Amino acid sequence: MKIEAVDFFYLSMPTVTTAADGSQDALLVRVAAGGHVGWGECEAAPLPSIAAFVCPMSHGACRPVSASVLGAPLTGPQDIAAISARVEHDSMDLLQAAHTLSGIEMALWDLLGQRRQEPVWRMLGFERSESKIPYASLLFGDTPDETQARARKAHADGFRAMKFGWGPIGTADAGYDADHFTAARDGIGADCHLMIDVGQIFAEDVEAAAARLPALQAAQATWFEEPFSGHAFEAYAALAARSPTVGIAGGEAAHNVAMARHLMDFGHVKYIQIDCGRIGGIGPAHEVAMLARARGVTFVNHTFTTHLALSASLQPYAGMRSDRICEYPAAPSALAQAVAANPILRDASGEIRAPEAPGLGITVDTEALKPYLVETEIRVGGQVLYATPSLD
Amino acid sequence: MKIEAVDFFYLSMPTVTTAADGSQDALLVRVAAGGHVGWGECEAAPLPSIAAFVCPMSHGACRPVSASVLGAPLTGPQDIAAISARVEHDSMDLLQAAHTLSGIEMALWDLLGQRRQEPVWRMLGFERSESKIPYASLLFGDTPDETQARARKAHADGFRAMKFGWGPIGTADAGYDADHFTAARDGIGADCHLMIDVGQIFAEDVEAAAARLPALQAAQATWFEEPFSGHAFEAYAALAARSPTVGIAGGEAAHNVAMARHLMDFGHVKYIQIDCGRIGGIGPAHEVAMLARARGVTFVNHTFTTHLALSASLQPYAGMRSDRICEYPAAPSALAQAVAANPILRDASGEIRAPEAPGLGITVDTEALKPYLVETEIRVGGQVLYATPSLD
Repeated sequence: MKIEAVDFFYLSMPTVTTAADGSQDALLVRVAAGGHVGWGECEAAPLPSIAAFVCPMSHGACRPVSASVLGAPLTGPQDIAAISARVEHDSMDLLQAAHTLSGIEMALWDLLGQRRQEPVWRMLGFERSESKIPYASLLFGDTPDETQARARKAHADGFRAMKFGWGPIGTADAGYDADHFTAARDGIGADCHLMIDVGQIFAEDVEAAAARLPALQAAQATWFEEPFSGHAFEAYAALAARSPTVGIAGGEAAHNVAMARHLMDFGHVKYIQIDCGRIGGIGPAHEVAMLARARGVTFVNHTFTTHLALSASLQPYAGMRSDRICEYPAAPSALAQAVAANPILRDASGEIRAPEAPGLGITVDTEALKPYLVETEIRVGGQVLYATPSLD
Repeated sequence: MKIEAVDFFYLSMPTVTTAADGSQDALLVRVAAGGHVGWGECEAAPLPSIAAFVCPMSHGACRPVSASVLGAPLTGPQDIAAISARVEHDSMDLLQAAHTLSGIEMALWDLLGQRRQEPVWRMLGFERSESKIPYASLLFGDTPDETQARARKAHADGFRAMKFGWGPIGTADAGYDADHFTAARDGIGADCHLMIDVGQIFAEDVEAAAARLPALQAAQATWFEEPFSGHAFEAYAALAARSPTVGIAGGEAAHNVAMARHLMDFGHVKYIQIDCGRIGGIGPAHEVAMLARARGVTFVNHTFTTHLALSASLQPYAGMRSDRICEYPAAPSALAQAVAANPILRDASGEIRAPEAPGLGITVDTEALKPYLVETEIRVGGQVLYATPSLD
């Protein structure tokens, strides 16, 4: 079969704020081939990502992503890899291409799974989908009390692992941040995993990040996530050398395998966190999972949006028993909640697994999405290159 | 003064081919502030770059580039750096942002130079604009004979340095490529600089690239450019270790300072080639030039398009006397030639310098550009976010 159609759906909450809540909008991708349909999601800015699919060619090494996808054969995983390689070369000067491809690549795996009646993780070579400990991924409150209240709520909701991120951390002094770390630990109790994410706030400033280590150690944080810019490998390595107990984590910004590999090899992170919606999809993420295993680095998914993205992000390490922790969007927007008719729920022991159903195993609820659809049109040189397609 | 307006102009030749000729379209940026106007150019896919400026915010770390630029104060270089830092943080999840910012950043330097009546290189701290040896940047022919003919023509045009790139290199065996390298050397004569650019054709395949080294050495090539993907630092280092006489060159794909630094520190390149239209503009490129000097690496501009881009790309190392070679678009499209009313011409000794005139020293010929303007419109949620502005 050949890829017949690729449709992008730009969805958004009515109001989008400056909070670090990545679930406020979404870019879903629907791919059709041979009577089957697959779904994927770009964890990316919707409009530029759509533009990178439909834009006119600039030259041979700056072609739109569509040129490598539409009409391409799709009979097995090797065809997906071939499409990815073609995008890497033919769109090398189109920076946004990796983000655009990510959602398409997921959708291709989903579609292939529908056709073969196999879950994606099995096509990746895993025998079983192992149980993972989901951590509630939450934003810090504006005050330590608010942070503590959110921690208590997540604990009451049955989570035994929690991550707090962004918010005011790094904007005042280390003592203020320590109060938040302590509040988070107090809120969840002594027996739970606590992770801290500071969203690149220290850029490349190793001393500023290191000033937070004593409080993180006192709060028994499992990891300290994204202290620096995604490319600041030297800073990551310097901090890792100064942090014997709290592991340094990062990787969500990786938009190709090499960036993730470098964060491990040059940045010495202990946890590598990959978002399938940015790194180019499931294939590259799986490659990183294999590289991580060979290095003794723990692989973790990065997912802050929908359960479609969650399923995709679990696939690359679904069968890796020793990598137990997974990110779980605990308080996503109404839009993000509307995407999956069959979300991935925690079992009796509070754990989750990548679905057994074919493909990604997620049924996209197109009716529920209609209120969030953002009508978009792009015209170039008198031609309509993109107009929001119908969700029906 | 404050930044009042940022206008993007998408220009294109009537026909765009798959040749590796980056001058077939262009994205110019015009910035207005305090009664002054500055011009810049993104070396990037026009439509996604425009979209990254006008798109709605997705969340606090995925804001459009416009949010960091419009209304911002502009009184000195420190304000430009502040805008760049803001884009890096507030648009961290918007991959295309660096390419969009690049043209704006150039235009801000140009505008500041108009206001201060100073060339950009002086604002960067250089005392003089030093002479550079321009190398004619050409594409390989389809056959060795064609390559040789192009070399002869460039030699007849007075060029004493030439670079051949892309074309069929790497698509057949090493012997075929050797014929092209020999033809290029035969065409330009023994006394000229010859550089070879293979446009990432070997991805991460060190052996395939190394198989070309003997012929490059025999042709006395000064450098071997972009054998691998922009992020393949390990492959660069492995090849560098095997190439004692032909220097390895790369860097045009760098979309931030860290990528360029890593190509030097982890990839061991001997020549670092920076395109101001991709790395975020002149400020980051200047930072790379300083890092290169400290490391004994030679800085070279990457420019394959207009003389506006050429001037911008010369500024970061205009005053560095020992870095003598510069890329010079020798056969750009009619569109690229139309941009500058006052192109940077070779002097009696065949050399060029960054202009002495204020800012970038290039007068954009808006009348000449009108035939190439591509009417573009982007509508989101019933609102027109972008419509091609007037060139008047």
